[in-house]
Amino acid sequence: MSEKKKPMLDVVMDLLVRRGFLVQTAEIYGNGLAGFYDFLPNGIQMRENIKKAWREFFVWSSIDPLIYEIEGAIVNPEEVFIASGHVSSFSDPLVSCSKCNAQLRADHLLEKVVGMKTEGLTTPQIQDAIKKHDVKCTECGGSLAPVEDFNLMLKTDVGPSKNSKRSYLRPETAQSIFCDFKRVFQTMRAQLPFGICQIGNSYRNEISPRQGLIRMRGFTQMEIEFFFDPDEPVHPDFDAVKETRINLITRETQAKEETADDIVEITIGEAMNKGVFPNNIQAYFVGKVFEFYQSIGIPYEALRFRHLLETETPFYSKGNFDLEIKLDMGWKEAVGIAYRTNHDLSTHAKNSGIKLEADVQKANQPLKKVVPHVVEPSFGVERALYSILEHAYRPAIEKGAAKKNDSDREWDWFQIQPHIAPFSAMVYPLMKKPELTKKAIELFKAIKAAGIPVFYDHAGQIGRRYARADEIGTPFCFTIDYQTNEDGTVTIRDRDTTKQIRVPLTDCVPVLQSLVRREKKFFDLGTPIK
Amino acid sequence: MSEKKKPMLDVVMDLLVRRGFLVQTAEIYGNGLAGFYDFLPNGIQMRENIKKAWREFFVWSSIDPLIYEIEGAIVNPEEVFIASGHVSSFSDPLVSCSKCNAQLRADHLLEKVVGMKTEGLTTPQIQDAIKKHDVKCTECGGSLAPVEDFNLMLKTDVGPSKNSKRSYLRPETAQSIFCDFKRVFQTMRAQLPFGICQIGNSYRNEISPRQGLIRMRGFTQMEIEFFFDPDEPVHPDFDAVKETRINLITRETQAKEETADDIVEITIGEAMNKGVFPNNIQAYFVGKVFEFYQSIGIPYEALRFRHLLETETPFYSKGNFDLEIKLDMGWKEAVGIAYRTNHDLSTHAKNSGIKLEADVQKANQPLKKVVPHVVEPSFGVERALYSILEHAYRPAIEKGAAKKNDSDREWDWFQIQPHIAPFSAMVYPLMKKPELTKKAIELFKAIKAAGIPVFYDHAGQIGRRYARADEIGTPFCFTIDYQTNEDGTVTIRDRDTTKQIRVPLTDCVPVLQSLVRREKKFFDLGTPIK
Repeated sequence: MSEKKKPMLDVVMDLLVRRGFLVQTAEIYGNGLAGFYDFLPNGIQMRENIKKAWREFFVWSSIDPLIYEIEGAIVNPEEVFIASGHVSSFSDPLVSCSKCNAQLRADHLLEKVVGMKTEGLTTPQIQDAIKKHDVKCTECGGSLAPVEDFNLMLKTDVGPSKNSKRSYLRPETAQSIFCDFKRVFQTMRAQLPFGICQIGNSYRNEISPRQGLIRMRGFTQMEIEFFFDPDEPVHPDFDAVKETRINLITRETQAKEETADDIVEITIGEAMNKGVFPNNIQAYFVGKVFEFYQSIGIPYEALRFRHLLETETPFYSKGNFDLEIKLDMGWKEAVGIAYRTNHDLSTHAKNSGIKLEADVQKANQPLKKVVPHVVEPSFGVERALYSILEHAYRPAIEKGAAKKNDSDREWDWFQIQPHIAPFSAMVYPLMKKPELTKKAIELFKAIKAAGIPVFYDHAGQIGRRYARADEIGTPFCFTIDYQTNEDGTVTIRDRDTTKQIRVPLTDCVPVLQSLVRREKKFFDLGTPIK
Repeated sequence: MSEKKKPMLDVVMDLLVRRGFLVQTAEIYGNGLAGFYDFLPNGIQMRENIKKAWREFFVWSSIDPLIYEIEGAIVNPEEVFIASGHVSSFSDPLVSCSKCNAQLRADHLLEKVVGMKTEGLTTPQIQDAIKKHDVKCTECGGSLAPVEDFNLMLKTDVGPSKNSKRSYLRPETAQSIFCDFKRVFQTMRAQLPFGICQIGNSYRNEISPRQGLIRMRGFTQMEIEFFFDPDEPVHPDFDAVKETRINLITRETQAKEETADDIVEITIGEAMNKGVFPNNIQAYFVGKVFEFYQSIGIPYEALRFRHLLETETPFYSKGNFDLEIKLDMGWKEAVGIAYRTNHDLSTHAKNSGIKLEADVQKANQPLKKVVPHVVEPSFGVERALYSILEHAYRPAIEKGAAKKNDSDREWDWFQIQPHIAPFSAMVYPLMKKPELTKKAIELFKAIKAAGIPVFYDHAGQIGRRYARADEIGTPFCFTIDYQTNEDGTVTIRDRDTTKQIRVPLTDCVPVLQSLVRREKKFFDLGTPIK
């Protein structure tokens, strides 16, 4: 095997395009707009499932404290991003070739050409290193112009020419949460501690968007700002995560190069006792996030939290932890959990002249006004989606090769969790004949009405339909056949084993529900056919 | 009563801000960004409910033909909008004051100052009319510069400076459906006729955004492109709408000013026979759209379809019908249903050099390639949301005044359909005590798990909680009280009558389901208390 293995990124992205998950935006025009993707039916449904799983895990299950959801506009006026610091300092170092006009990220160029680490370097330091190592343009060998700070926000002007307002496409969803804080607090009659969350699009004008869904210019974030009284930095549900075991990279191990990647296995409770976290709210979210990514299909050993170094942490932050996922290309950040203190609310209050405070009423004490602190877990949706798919990928065996186990197929397939797969089930009539399609459509509608993602397909030979179901990771397929009209049973096919069991048509919805919620296993349903 | 009545728009928008539905984007900065709104917890949930109702009505219930959902990027490169014609001609006439720099929509200015109708006028015609009537700036009386065409797309440049790509925030979701047509057709193995739909944000840089949610710069569209073989312009489900009765304004009645607003009551079948529609696909969607708006809460008599005049219809279109909703401010367009022929696919194919065709296989005939035609129903989500709320608004009676019927309250409330109201139910423990909250939280979670929007509230006196539920249109409230621990029943309160009935705790989820689906009425549940 001297062939160079194709990177998993290319394998998976290629499948996603061919299987109706996504396509480059405006692909028909010269391969489209770099950094943007349109989501097609299978991808859109999987992305929705991730959002729903997240809402269930973090939002709906949280009653006391409550987490309120908002949806702010994508376009915001410059005042918002002046206050947040994005106008002055949300930039990457850009270097341009004086000869061919190529434009490159200066820090990446140094890493590639000189092999040096650039994390935490300032723009002048990067400039000095380029000069010192006499780095040239990698495209044409030309000499490079001085490094500039390239602001990563997409600009747009709102309103007619003479009265237009400089605005930006938001680089994160968080700022509308801070701007709307007072309204949410008042209209929902919130009480500290509480959260405000948001799922929505954000935009970053990356100098070189690459790596498929990993570095996009338009992407989806899920963010929570968890507001609390700094005098009571306590999450009421902390006990629920005390025993949760995580993989952690501490600041201590990172201090030496030879131990920089060493993982400490530790429970949240132990880590809290050792003083790893500034407060138990951040500890709570670290534990919950670690659990969540396992629940959507990332293996325990492919997850780790890294405590960011002081040089990587903004001055106002009292501690940042990044969840990293192990991918073929290396460990990639998937979630950031930052303790941002009251920096954002204070800055917006100062710049807008509007007080952003919460009333705190304690027994036998006068009403107190506080500027709440926040812990902010921030998730990238498309990174999660890609990571799940890479870990769920099962390559085809060679055509005609002997099958050694149930997972061997002549087609590539995805072993995705039942509630995350684009569709939890397919419904097929064996053939497109009225005596079969009528019942099949009824079943399809009953599953849909139960809120389970399901797809109806009557095209082509049944074996081919099962293969197509595998190809997009569908865990269960129901087939209405002629026996259905005789004894009222249908077949349910299991993706992971390709086995089939007959179940009563009238039981299909509850059976599927218990399979998707993993209250039941497939072989609990009965004896496989043949 | 000599007081001038406050316009309903102001009444409703004011309530929406005070009751946690929405707020102007970046409101804390000088009242925010005109034309943009952030949606808060109650508004976001109601908007989601409208989207879900739409998907159920138009997408999930359509199996043969299938309708596939996609989600394209909001930012697209200029090639897309050059092909679609938006770069050259998606503009409004803009006039600027030479003295005070005010910028106004020239056609609206003429309508306001001169009282003339401007629909269909060209920019030079508008210019002539302004000159003829010597129209001055309404802000300062200054003289006006010549009328210019102001393009309504928001521009942004993607990529680093020297290599940036002129792009736009899409003014409609439709264009990504056309650009992705080939991929969807191939990867989903679609067969004509079929639809591709999309729900998402669109942006129009309105010269004067006004009227709350009616003319926004950032808004949500729901669009379907229904693709069909022009040789077979037939919707397989047409019979389902044949008897649907609609209010129609024909081209004939619009020809004379005195009959311009005359409504013809007619069934879709009759209208089809009279040749009102170019084909039964457009007729089908006209019927379905009329049904849909009634199902989400707009009264029959407040709905009408207007057949657009030839001067209002683009050259490539074979007929446009607009659904208009009667509001306090007049009749407002809420949906456009356009027969766009193959104009979009042909233009994108020509400009991109990529063939955008569908294979058609008929019995005993060779495979044929066609460029499909489309009928496009296009819905504005926020306009629907606002219209529902205006029609659902029930004003408070004067404080202390005698109540004449069940709907009389001392607070303004909304009589929204159960599946559209932000929350279909509230769950309350009578008091925040563990012996009550435990069961209340279990009920809340069970309702949530059944996919019904529900809110949990334990703050304040119970009567005040009922009032707050009314204020955001919640149809049903469950209260766990001390009797629950004795006999296992809870109270359910009906918003429309304020009556309460006790039902077994274990029945609450199915009871609520049947009430929301309107399979049951409230008084079917038993005898009201007291």
